[in-house]
Amino acid sequence: MTDFSPERDFALELDSSDPLAGYRQRFVIADPDLIYLDGNSLGRLPKATAKRLADLVNREWGADLVRGWSQGWWDSPARVGEGIAKLVGAAPGQVLVGDSTSVDLFKLAAAALQLRPERTKIVTDTLNFPSNLYILQGLARLLGGRHRILRIGSQDGEITPDLEALYAAIDEETTLVTLSHVVFKSGYLYDMAEVTRRAHEKGALVLWDLSHAVGAVPIELDACQADFAIGCTYKYLNGGPGSPAFIYVNKSLQDKAISPIWGWWGQHMPFAFDLDYAPAPGAARFLAGSQPILSLLAMEASLEPLLEAGMGAIREKSLRLTEYAISLHDQLLTPLGFRLGSPRESVRRGSHVSIRHPEGYRINRALIEEMKVIPDFREPDNLRLGFAPLYTSFEDVWQGLERIRKVVAEKVYEKYSSDKATVT
Amino acid sequence: MTDFSPERDFALELDSSDPLAGYRQRFVIADPDLIYLDGNSLGRLPKATAKRLADLVNREWGADLVRGWSQGWWDSPARVGEGIAKLVGAAPGQVLVGDSTSVDLFKLAAAALQLRPERTKIVTDTLNFPSNLYILQGLARLLGGRHRILRIGSQDGEITPDLEALYAAIDEETTLVTLSHVVFKSGYLYDMAEVTRRAHEKGALVLWDLSHAVGAVPIELDACQADFAIGCTYKYLNGGPGSPAFIYVNKSLQDKAISPIWGWWGQHMPFAFDLDYAPAPGAARFLAGSQPILSLLAMEASLEPLLEAGMGAIREKSLRLTEYAISLHDQLLTPLGFRLGSPRESVRRGSHVSIRHPEGYRINRALIEEMKVIPDFREPDNLRLGFAPLYTSFEDVWQGLERIRKVVAEKVYEKYSSDKATVT
Repeated sequence: MTDFSPERDFALELDSSDPLAGYRQRFVIADPDLIYLDGNSLGRLPKATAKRLADLVNREWGADLVRGWSQGWWDSPARVGEGIAKLVGAAPGQVLVGDSTSVDLFKLAAAALQLRPERTKIVTDTLNFPSNLYILQGLARLLGGRHRILRIGSQDGEITPDLEALYAAIDEETTLVTLSHVVFKSGYLYDMAEVTRRAHEKGALVLWDLSHAVGAVPIELDACQADFAIGCTYKYLNGGPGSPAFIYVNKSLQDKAISPIWGWWGQHMPFAFDLDYAPAPGAARFLAGSQPILSLLAMEASLEPLLEAGMGAIREKSLRLTEYAISLHDQLLTPLGFRLGSPRESVRRGSHVSIRHPEGYRINRALIEEMKVIPDFREPDNLRLGFAPLYTSFEDVWQGLERIRKVVAEKVYEKYSSDKATVT
Repeated sequence: MTDFSPERDFALELDSSDPLAGYRQRFVIADPDLIYLDGNSLGRLPKATAKRLADLVNREWGADLVRGWSQGWWDSPARVGEGIAKLVGAAPGQVLVGDSTSVDLFKLAAAALQLRPERTKIVTDTLNFPSNLYILQGLARLLGGRHRILRIGSQDGEITPDLEALYAAIDEETTLVTLSHVVFKSGYLYDMAEVTRRAHEKGALVLWDLSHAVGAVPIELDACQADFAIGCTYKYLNGGPGSPAFIYVNKSLQDKAISPIWGWWGQHMPFAFDLDYAPAPGAARFLAGSQPILSLLAMEASLEPLLEAGMGAIREKSLRLTEYAISLHDQLLTPLGFRLGSPRESVRRGSHVSIRHPEGYRINRALIEEMKVIPDFREPDNLRLGFAPLYTSFEDVWQGLERIRKVVAEKVYEKYSSDKATVT
């Protein structure tokens, strides 16, 4: 990777030969000098989304009023789900949008445990998003404490999982294997096909969290025969702050799987108002109550540029961006005490790169407060740099890494307290 | 109630002496000739909300990007909750906004059942919103089938509950009593203080669904010593389509009650990313995952006119509106085969009125398709007329009832099929 020059001109050259460069103008860039490297946390606002929201609010809600429900609102969880399905390798009828990733994980994990009632072992890892572990802990408690949750660790400081230990842990007692496809700190990318195959070999089900993967790396849920998946839509899908999550329920399980949360949106005839629940056919049974339509339809517009560009081209640029960032890190930042917190092997890396420094928290504060760079910080020492191929330019990468160099080389961060704020 | 004249001029007189008349101009009225009587299903768009949303999308999301989380997004469930708390008689620290009513009911009902683990009887009624019954059924199944759900019926065709049977059913076996404060079809308004007292007398907990009550009738959760409540925000609170619901957890239960869905928003230190869950102090432990911020902050603006007008004035006008509607029904519609589907006793009625007719479904279609009246239809024969005191005028009521009369008297509805559409 040393063929990347650390000069700014080289970034401009990379941009000029980038086939996706034109997509940047589809997004609102309010301040061109702000280097936004947190699209893995909250994606930028697509211009089409702003327009769609204005129409949705003023015309659909304001003028059409309750008639909106029969004019595209009620079926939006399924319709927007079909857009996402194309990004995750899912044939129609398996993806739905609604509720939060936490609630969705609860629903699908509960369904999975009920499909393997005689088994009691849940396998996950310490790299998983902690909220996912909390959901499993709460679910296990709710179900009477019969289940054990096994968390496989890492052998290299939480960058990559211990695959050998993981595969050894999956056995005939295992009901569910659940992992983040791309892990939130290091960006490690699991081999979905291989893990799923290993789990199925032992009769276990697999539930993938695609939050940091969807829209950033190609995903083939059907081809991998994944059982269940959930994913966040406000990161690389640009759905807007807190936009609802999505679920994937493999066709083969849809008539057997039962949601723990029985709501009218998952009832077979919601407007008959029967007093007894009967599940809707298909994945729709995993819907519960009314969904936030403003967020859902905003997201529908946000998906367009992704679908247009295609995951192949997006992945190609993503790899180029992260390789370039790692090369700049190696050249500019390792002399200043940084070390890479992400896999060097491209095939095992998502679209964000963590760089680690003992003063990571204060460096992050300085970058945001006075350097017009927005990464984010994750304990204990990770600065996460997220690269969204549709709007992150190679110059953004260069500017970002160069400003980080400056903050450390010139000790700009020293005037910032290391007291942690509540929200970072 | 026969002192209401059926002449249009009388409606105009009522409007001219209405102290809340000025609030109508705070809402978008795209077509003044459209008689909107479905604010109990989806509230109108407040002008301030449209403005707030535009700023939120373009400035906060578009320009501030991820920094929005620390500038008012992250704490919005609690902050917006405090606005709602003032409408439901709750001291600070007990109301939070987030997730759907179905998911919220699941969370609070599960918590209640865990607080009375030795008891196995759940008491509700057949007037409850069916989705609430589904949630209870799913929860009971998930917990192993130990719980019985008792549904108290009605003695007058699903208009009012059988209170005698209800009170008799609440006993020392009862873990939870859960009811809709205002029931969705007939608008019957339960005596919250009395039901709660009866439940507590037997050691049972009470969970109120305030969906059709909040913003329409005064509610005194603290004074009634209610244990738990949930409520919808897109009806009389005008939060927009599918805006997230709210929960109330009585202070006295907050440190004992445990959510079944353990997410990072309910964790005591969400950004420490500990691998083990520890519940946040207070009601916050009932939060799970990220909330739809667009909907949440839209709702914050929507609450302003309600808080300004105050529930006393709102209730006074609501009663006047429903009394007027019932009087017009009696004078204009009973000769055409209608009968009232709501309580005549004002103190037991919320802010919507059901009128019933064997051809209710087709009448509803005709009203929407060619009479510019929007009520809604609920099985088997209910036309629901919702009156939102802040924007429904007495002339709206007169126009609505007069056009209904016309549809039936002139048999306009006969050209409409009685085949039910999916969404009504």
